[in-house]
Amino acid sequence: MAQIIDGRLLAQKIEEQIRQEVGKMGIKPGLAIILVGNDPASQIYVDSKERACHRVGFYFEEILLPREIGQEKLIEIIKLLNENPNFHGILVQLPLPGHIDEIRVLSAINPKKDVDGFHFSNLGRILVTKRNTPDDALIPATAKAILLLLESTGVPIEGKKAVVLGRSNIVGKPVALLLLQKNATIEICHSKTQNIAAECLSADILIAAIGKPLFVTKEMVKEGTIVIDVGINRIEDKFDPRGYHIVGDVDFENVKNKASFITPVPGGVGPMTIVMLLENTLRIVKNPDIV
Amino acid sequence: MAQIIDGRLLAQKIEEQIRQEVGKMGIKPGLAIILVGNDPASQIYVDSKERACHRVGFYFEEILLPREIGQEKLIEIIKLLNENPNFHGILVQLPLPGHIDEIRVLSAINPKKDVDGFHFSNLGRILVTKRNTPDDALIPATAKAILLLLESTGVPIEGKKAVVLGRSNIVGKPVALLLLQKNATIEICHSKTQNIAAECLSADILIAAIGKPLFVTKEMVKEGTIVIDVGINRIEDKFDPRGYHIVGDVDFENVKNKASFITPVPGGVGPMTIVMLLENTLRIVKNPDIV
Repeated sequence: MAQIIDGRLLAQKIEEQIRQEVGKMGIKPGLAIILVGNDPASQIYVDSKERACHRVGFYFEEILLPREIGQEKLIEIIKLLNENPNFHGILVQLPLPGHIDEIRVLSAINPKKDVDGFHFSNLGRILVTKRNTPDDALIPATAKAILLLLESTGVPIEGKKAVVLGRSNIVGKPVALLLLQKNATIEICHSKTQNIAAECLSADILIAAIGKPLFVTKEMVKEGTIVIDVGINRIEDKFDPRGYHIVGDVDFENVKNKASFITPVPGGVGPMTIVMLLENTLRIVKNPDIV
Repeated sequence: MAQIIDGRLLAQKIEEQIRQEVGKMGIKPGLAIILVGNDPASQIYVDSKERACHRVGFYFEEILLPREIGQEKLIEIIKLLNENPNFHGILVQLPLPGHIDEIRVLSAINPKKDVDGFHFSNLGRILVTKRNTPDDALIPATAKAILLLLESTGVPIEGKKAVVLGRSNIVGKPVALLLLQKNATIEICHSKTQNIAAECLSADILIAAIGKPLFVTKEMVKEGTIVIDVGINRIEDKFDPRGYHIVGDVDFENVKNKASFITPVPGGVGPMTIVMLLENTLRIVKNPDIV
């Protein structure tokens, strides 16, 4: 029976440290989030980030833009925020509508204000950073969250086989590179992987970030594996007042009997991701020339 | 019995295309190579690159600097080359002496002239580039060479398990990311990997880039695997007029009986790497705003 990794508790501890640190600062760290369109799920994420900012004493602004906005107009707005000294961090909530090139838009953010760490130059810094010194980069919040959750178990990462399911630019690839820095053997699986169950069975650390509800079953997990579930999937549920409930990419109820440690959904990676965003913002305030 | 992948022949074909293209151009593509110190192995590599430049009609200059040069002085020289319109490509021959921070020096090269593709922003572009469209980046020559050698076999990469031995910034990590773009499942192994033989046995494509002579034995290779040997190791040899001979990271003589395709050393990755460097230079000439 696995130990449950309590992401909420760990996030609260770090958030409290941030709140205290901000209280002693002469300036108010500022975060701007651009939201394009009115996707309800994205709005929920932005609202959570706003509440977290307020809890720790950050200045927060949401820039809500119409779904139809042109790419160049969006980039102009980003450039204004790049110049605005009230904002230490700028974040564009993903996904963007289909007519907008996500990579081009993210590349318009000043890398020194790129709290999400999604600018290609910040991702490149993760790739080249020397082992065990990732502090001179802005690391994507989810990847950093996963690393801290793993480290909270006390189990050494070095020499472990880490299998990452999912190859997104913002989770799968950066977390694999971070674990490689920590001397794990890393493997990235995805929709084209043949016999994904066998690959998962080779994992000492299994990170599920593919956005498929309950994809990882107990047959895919070796006894004693550490399982980190990044998935946030809505399942229709007429008994839930919201009309849905949230599940991860892992069949938690069955996998927990084989894993040594496991993160729940909700209450695992999610809360930690938000606090890592606060931490990245604070790191920029303390070191404007961080990158 | 494996088919031998003839890197020399493939390189000659591509070099001839480049030579013809340069002949029709109004300008002479220019490449500057900075060599710090007088390491004989590095000098041999630089000389090969110089000969290749001359064969295809490039302008070439070697900037030979003393081993004791300070890091800031070296960076100043790079900045002068960044401004010099005669040079479309700039390359700093690695390794650098221990007192110089390689990452900082490589970061000083203008990314638009970074023919080696080692600048963190160019490496980041490989990470974020959309699948199957890596053409908007400067890809490290060795990684690109490996990809073309694999594609020359005619065997589809998609869905294959590719195991990369070695996690350098300039070979292991970029080639793994390129293969991921091509829909391979990727794994990176290194000195801290436990049971590396078992990991190798899971490979459909095995890329050896760890700099250990004859490390990969036939016991580590599954029947039918495609084996790419990036190693260039000097073995003392009193019967050789040079006093040494070159071997790869793979025990070629024994592994070739199990592999489906295999690259020899020399004559495999090496010649292709040099021609990929020419190609990167030419791509910059044709598109100065390539990145």
